[in-house]
Amino acid sequence: MMKASPRRVPELETPCAVLDEARMQRNIERLQRRLRGLGVAFRPHLKTAKSVEIARRMMASTAGPATVSTLREAEQFAGAGVRDILYAVGIAPAKLDRVLALRRAGIDLSIILDSREQAQAVAAKSREANDRIPTLIEIDADGHRAGVRPGDPLLVAIGTELQRGGAELRGVMTHAGGSYDHPGSAALTAAAEQERRAVVTAADALGEAGLPCTVVSVGSTPTAHFARDLTGVTEVRAGVFVFFDLVMAGLGVCTLDDIALSVLATVIGHQRDKGWIVTDAGWTALSRDRGTASQRLDQGYGLACDRHGKPYEDLIVAQTSQEHGILALRPGSQAALPDLPVGTLVRILPNHACATAAQHDRYHVLDASGEVSAEWPRFGGW
Amino acid sequence: MMKASPRRVPELETPCAVLDEARMQRNIERLQRRLRGLGVAFRPHLKTAKSVEIARRMMASTAGPATVSTLREAEQFAGAGVRDILYAVGIAPAKLDRVLALRRAGIDLSIILDSREQAQAVAAKSREANDRIPTLIEIDADGHRAGVRPGDPLLVAIGTELQRGGAELRGVMTHAGGSYDHPGSAALTAAAEQERRAVVTAADALGEAGLPCTVVSVGSTPTAHFARDLTGVTEVRAGVFVFFDLVMAGLGVCTLDDIALSVLATVIGHQRDKGWIVTDAGWTALSRDRGTASQRLDQGYGLACDRHGKPYEDLIVAQTSQEHGILALRPGSQAALPDLPVGTLVRILPNHACATAAQHDRYHVLDASGEVSAEWPRFGGW
Repeated sequence: MMKASPRRVPELETPCAVLDEARMQRNIERLQRRLRGLGVAFRPHLKTAKSVEIARRMMASTAGPATVSTLREAEQFAGAGVRDILYAVGIAPAKLDRVLALRRAGIDLSIILDSREQAQAVAAKSREANDRIPTLIEIDADGHRAGVRPGDPLLVAIGTELQRGGAELRGVMTHAGGSYDHPGSAALTAAAEQERRAVVTAADALGEAGLPCTVVSVGSTPTAHFARDLTGVTEVRAGVFVFFDLVMAGLGVCTLDDIALSVLATVIGHQRDKGWIVTDAGWTALSRDRGTASQRLDQGYGLACDRHGKPYEDLIVAQTSQEHGILALRPGSQAALPDLPVGTLVRILPNHACATAAQHDRYHVLDASGEVSAEWPRFGGW
Repeated sequence: MMKASPRRVPELETPCAVLDEARMQRNIERLQRRLRGLGVAFRPHLKTAKSVEIARRMMASTAGPATVSTLREAEQFAGAGVRDILYAVGIAPAKLDRVLALRRAGIDLSIILDSREQAQAVAAKSREANDRIPTLIEIDADGHRAGVRPGDPLLVAIGTELQRGGAELRGVMTHAGGSYDHPGSAALTAAAEQERRAVVTAADALGEAGLPCTVVSVGSTPTAHFARDLTGVTEVRAGVFVFFDLVMAGLGVCTLDDIALSVLATVIGHQRDKGWIVTDAGWTALSRDRGTASQRLDQGYGLACDRHGKPYEDLIVAQTSQEHGILALRPGSQAALPDLPVGTLVRILPNHACATAAQHDRYHVLDASGEVSAEWPRFGGW
């Protein structure tokens, strides 16, 4: 791994991604402790960080288990020693050759799907390769995206197609993406129970049909933090918790003090009559994600903090262009606009850490004293 | 440059960026011809493409002139032989050492600013390095972002600070970013005239104060295509025209047939009762840009085409998550949802080509017959 010699924050080139290691470690330990208490395994999702250094801090062991969102992640993490990987996006048949190549290299790579067409393709490929590709059926817990509804007879049809056709029906999985729309402890606890019930119902249906179902997998950062009972669930997946972000703070899953990722930026100008402070962090550095737009507190394109990470009252990124971010007070705010001369360093907390991290090829890691202790590479692509 | 052996589109790994070279070439020639007719030089903005292969097709010569939005671009393009570069984002004083390093390497790199604080820093650095850093004062033509208003006495104060302080006052520049909000030929022609008048007024004010102003630079893709008279302007900058996109089509600057960049995706599932077709192109491939949300025709996160690039009627990317895109008919559409089985390849036209291109590290280039003729690398970062 690259390791830069320790440097001070003012020596970093802006814009860049900075990572508060102590906060990240606290976030990881919080969720690990919680899931141990619930008696389920943890299969962290590595898509947020896409960093070997961070993955090793998230996983139970250097070999996994882990969840990924692309085959590039599977290949990169396999190269770093991860052996137990779930590729948690519905499989495209054309991607099965890359899946098989990883499996031939000794990786226990499993896949997901939600249609008979995919099941037929996976079964055919399994027979052709003489390798029963381990497959989970994706369950639709809340109507937000993909998956088979737990009571749909299609579920057993897919399971039968897989298991009798030559693949390995390993189980069921779901992602309660709908939980992102429901703030507050009660709503998130209910979303977690809805998520649990969906997969347990599906697992029961497979069992009643005489089909195997070893893995019963749920996961989203909000539900992982609010589930009270995970009876029947074997593992939990979550990703964005490692950094947290303003969307998660708006949902009540974390506080601003838990957000470990921010973008360091430099003030490059002002439009004083408009109350604008212009920085060099535009959407290439922050992403175009507006995840807080639908929340009670709209954070624009991010919340501005001083260079030590302390938020300025109501100072948000009101507009972005490619390499400009305009800081302004939230509409209606009574706060005073801080005096930030040209050259001042600020840090921007992200709406959505997955999207902001995806705009960067490295993390500048800050230690407890606020010094830059390391530079960790991040990869992207597919 | 990397050059892949020609491959067929179905052999590409999805999601990926594909580039129709003939459309791109047509877009470039159209604007070059137009600006020749108006008697101004062209300084293409390389921030959209960030590719040496594409830059060479945009510039008048391999040496430039060119515009960039980051010092990383300046360094990369300088390495490829570009000698005349304008870094068109307000300078942060801490970046002046990188500017000077490029200048010492023989690059005619010029910078922009809009405050006395920056002018003092640039003048001081020029004296220290014994190199009069060529500097343009940024003019605010339409209140959309940065710059000094043309009639503001600050303009002459900044010019004096630069020129007497030891830097080179090279001229004035503006970017009519406000033109993105005004569709139609008449509005864009008016925006172009407003942009012209702003810089010419500023240049006159500098001249009256006895200050030099060799360069009078304007630029935005909409105004570059609708300016009728550029008297007093010496050069035009534009970037997104090289690919065009749905925002530009919505403004009336191009047609759908001019859009050269798209994202190739694979259908991975369906939610038939909702009319959803799920693909593997989420926001990591498309970006989170919603530039058409404020236009008459909201294109969601992009417009879906068949794999040859022919648009499906009213089929847009209605939702995205990290690695999923949900295709659905535009609300209120009477069109029939096309039957796209799992494995079908589609192409998504981008809302904002700069943002979509920024999500990729290469372009798969399609020739006139639709075959993949090359793979051109793209860089990012700062």
